[in-house]
Amino acid sequence: MNETIKNQLNHRSIRKYQEKKIPEEVMSTLIDVARHTSTSSFEQSYSIIKVTDQEKKNKIAEVCQQHYVAEGSHLLIFVADLYRNAVIAKENHQETTVLKNMDRFMVAMSDAVLATQNVNVAAESLGIGTVILGSILNDSREIIKLLELPELTFPILGLALGYPDQEPQLKPRLPQKLMCFENTYQLPTEALVKKLEPYDAEVTEYYDLRNANRRVDSFTKQMTDNMNRKPTKRLQTLTEIKKQGLILE
Amino acid sequence: MNETIKNQLNHRSIRKYQEKKIPEEVMSTLIDVARHTSTSSFEQSYSIIKVTDQEKKNKIAEVCQQHYVAEGSHLLIFVADLYRNAVIAKENHQETTVLKNMDRFMVAMSDAVLATQNVNVAAESLGIGTVILGSILNDSREIIKLLELPELTFPILGLALGYPDQEPQLKPRLPQKLMCFENTYQLPTEALVKKLEPYDAEVTEYYDLRNANRRVDSFTKQMTDNMNRKPTKRLQTLTEIKKQGLILE
Repeated sequence: MNETIKNQLNHRSIRKYQEKKIPEEVMSTLIDVARHTSTSSFEQSYSIIKVTDQEKKNKIAEVCQQHYVAEGSHLLIFVADLYRNAVIAKENHQETTVLKNMDRFMVAMSDAVLATQNVNVAAESLGIGTVILGSILNDSREIIKLLELPELTFPILGLALGYPDQEPQLKPRLPQKLMCFENTYQLPTEALVKKLEPYDAEVTEYYDLRNANRRVDSFTKQMTDNMNRKPTKRLQTLTEIKKQGLILE
Repeated sequence: MNETIKNQLNHRSIRKYQEKKIPEEVMSTLIDVARHTSTSSFEQSYSIIKVTDQEKKNKIAEVCQQHYVAEGSHLLIFVADLYRNAVIAKENHQETTVLKNMDRFMVAMSDAVLATQNVNVAAESLGIGTVILGSILNDSREIIKLLELPELTFPILGLALGYPDQEPQLKPRLPQKLMCFENTYQLPTEALVKKLEPYDAEVTEYYDLRNANRRVDSFTKQMTDNMNRKPTKRLQTLTEIKKQGLILE
């Protein structure tokens, strides 16, 4: 096993950072890594916003309801971006109505998420702690306003970065046989909650051992409770995406 | 710069593979890397289908219209999967209607794409060549049938893997200043096609130097022409997603 994979298997989110800043040339290397990520049909249909303004960081942390978002030394927002290529096409007198199709949104979202994970791996390989923030979507309209995102763009994920000031335990993951199948999706042949008992026990032990925030819910209990997690604005995401001129068909 | 980042900056898609197979234990390590990827709210809402059946691989290659998909030694399909946690919740008598919301689809799609890129980086670090396949969505219904995907799941990306039998040039990417902004999205202040002239020249040179398939279109020309790329079935993706019980609101 090489260093890359060793780091990947050792992944944990970092939510507490040292004051030490990440040097600008390191940030620039991370953006270069993003640029070299695979991209659908060479379109590179994503953009990155580096949020350095502390007031904006505070507001984004509020949207995320995660104070540490404002405390990392850097915050990147990965944006699905069909706007840039639309501008190019329009300059060439080409109509662009196809961009309102779901397929094109998925292309742009894939590009943005692939780049996020690529940057994440690069940062971790340098000893930088990260946390990926799906929670920017708690209020996508607010993020769009703060970052002045034009039509045909939409924020997808955030990435907070900083040198780690904590060493969390490795969080246990679903066993391979429950999430990786051969040739066809394997429907559960017995009750999943029963089958997941050993994993549930592992997860509960993980929370028991964790110092901060003693949360002792098993995996299946958390997944069940998550069905009740319905932040109002977040359930309006499709409406907000449509306002950006995307997923209209 | 470390080995991880060196490999990432050196990324190129590989579309021709040696006959040599990837050992099973290596494939298992790659799935382990997927398992340790960041996941929204601990939900792990994706699954991986290893396609080993040659007939299925051939059919998927046909959907992708990329013959090499069938020729890699391994083919993985990353699936957004809200079904597994729905089963768990239902066993616990919890209703799951929230899963039809766009927000939950995005969570599952993010999980699937993050895992794809994590596996991709791991594979490349081992000298394995890969190509990410958005083209499985050319006919998502056919993929769903072939892999017997249940409701609340949807195929997102494929990943073909094999030991490289080609050494393609590094494809030039958009300059940082055009895809990475500080604090706010920067609208173009002059014509983009004009601004992209140096990049267009770089892209054209890349195609000139490439041995196979002399394609000499500039970046801006390709992006313009892409607006006319409208494979009928692919434009039905939203309809197919809805049939799976997803994005109904």
